[in-house]
Order: sequence, then structure tokens, then C-alpha cells
Amino acid sequence: MLLVITYDVDTTDAQGAKRLRKVAKLCERSGVRVQNSVFEVLVDAAQLVVLKAELSKIIDHERDSVRFYRLGNSYQHKIETMGRTPLVQAGEALLL
Amino acid sequence: MLLVITYDVDTTDAQGAKRLRKVAKLCERSGVRVQNSVFEVLVDAAQLVVLKAELSKIIDHERDSVRFYRLGNSYQHKIETMGRTPLVQAGEALLL
Repeated sequence: MLLVITYDVDTTDAQGAKRLRKVAKLCERSGVRVQNSVFEVLVDAAQLVVLKAELSKIIDHERDSVRFYRLGNSYQHKIETMGRTPLVQAGEALLL
Repeated sequence: MLLVITYDVDTTDAQGAKRLRKVAKLCERSGVRVQNSVFEVLVDAAQLVVLKAELSKIIDHERDSVRFYRLGNSYQHKIETMGRTPLVQAGEALLL
């Protein structure tokens, strides 16, 4: 299924920027970073359990917010875009 | 239907911050700001057409990125959260 993960952290703080980098690295193993703090990942139910456990270890639960939106398997018609295209495509090096 | 709108703009720039404020104001007419640049709005098909037309006028199409994720009408089980809860709930004043 396609899962959209949005991550909110104050990246003006060096620790926050470090956490965002770690979240991005983790999510890009299974998907694409489509905006600075938005990731679209393809996972099955078992992979999702692992991903959430790993994310839970990275984030600061007091300061950060992570939201997961399940778009299912027929997700193509559920996504629309406006403005510029993603900064980073899957597989490209992260420029943070 | 529930629509998740994610907005990516460099808000270190005053103009960008202004655009984000305008996007937030617009989206909060029909929903909630759940993260700094993530909005969950409840719209029908006609309202979505209007919303997109208004967003299109606000954003800088060269610099900003907006993504729309349609979660449909049975969205409750498609959303999960981790970490802190939304900064701003529907109806509250925006603190920008």
C-alpha cells in the first residue's frame, strides 16, 4: 500500500534537522521524499510495523509530530499536485 | 471527502511565510491545520474545484509545491499519528 508520512519538527534546531535527516533516510528506503517533510512510501503491513517502530525510536515524542495516511493500493488517482515537482526523486542523494 | 493538503514553501523568506499564512487561512475554512504545512479539509467535489482555484492564485508555481491526497469519506481508520498532537485545532486562532 501507499503510505504518506508527514513529519513536523522545528529544523531551525540542529537536533531537529538531524532527526529529519534520519526520518528521510529511513523513509527513502521504501519510497520517495516528495516535499521537505512529506514522504510517500510503499509498504506492506509487516513493513509498516517495522517502519513505525524505527520512526518511534528516531523522533522526539514531545516535540515532533508524525502523521500516517494510508492511501491503499489504488492510490494513483488519489494524488494530485500543483506547483513544482519533488525536490528529490527516489534513489537520488539527499541534499540537506 | 477528506483531503490532505501538504504545502512546501521556503518560509524563511517573508513572501513565503505570507503565502503559507494565506494557504492556512484558506484551508482552515474547511478543515484543520494538523502540522505546520499539512491541512486536513472536508470538501465535496464542487468545493474542491473552488479550493484548488483559490490555492492556485495564492501559491508561487515556480517555488511552491502543493500535494492533494484524497482519503475519501471513510478516512478515520486511514489516519494514524505519532508524537505530539496538532498545534492548532479547527476554529482556533492561528498563531503565525
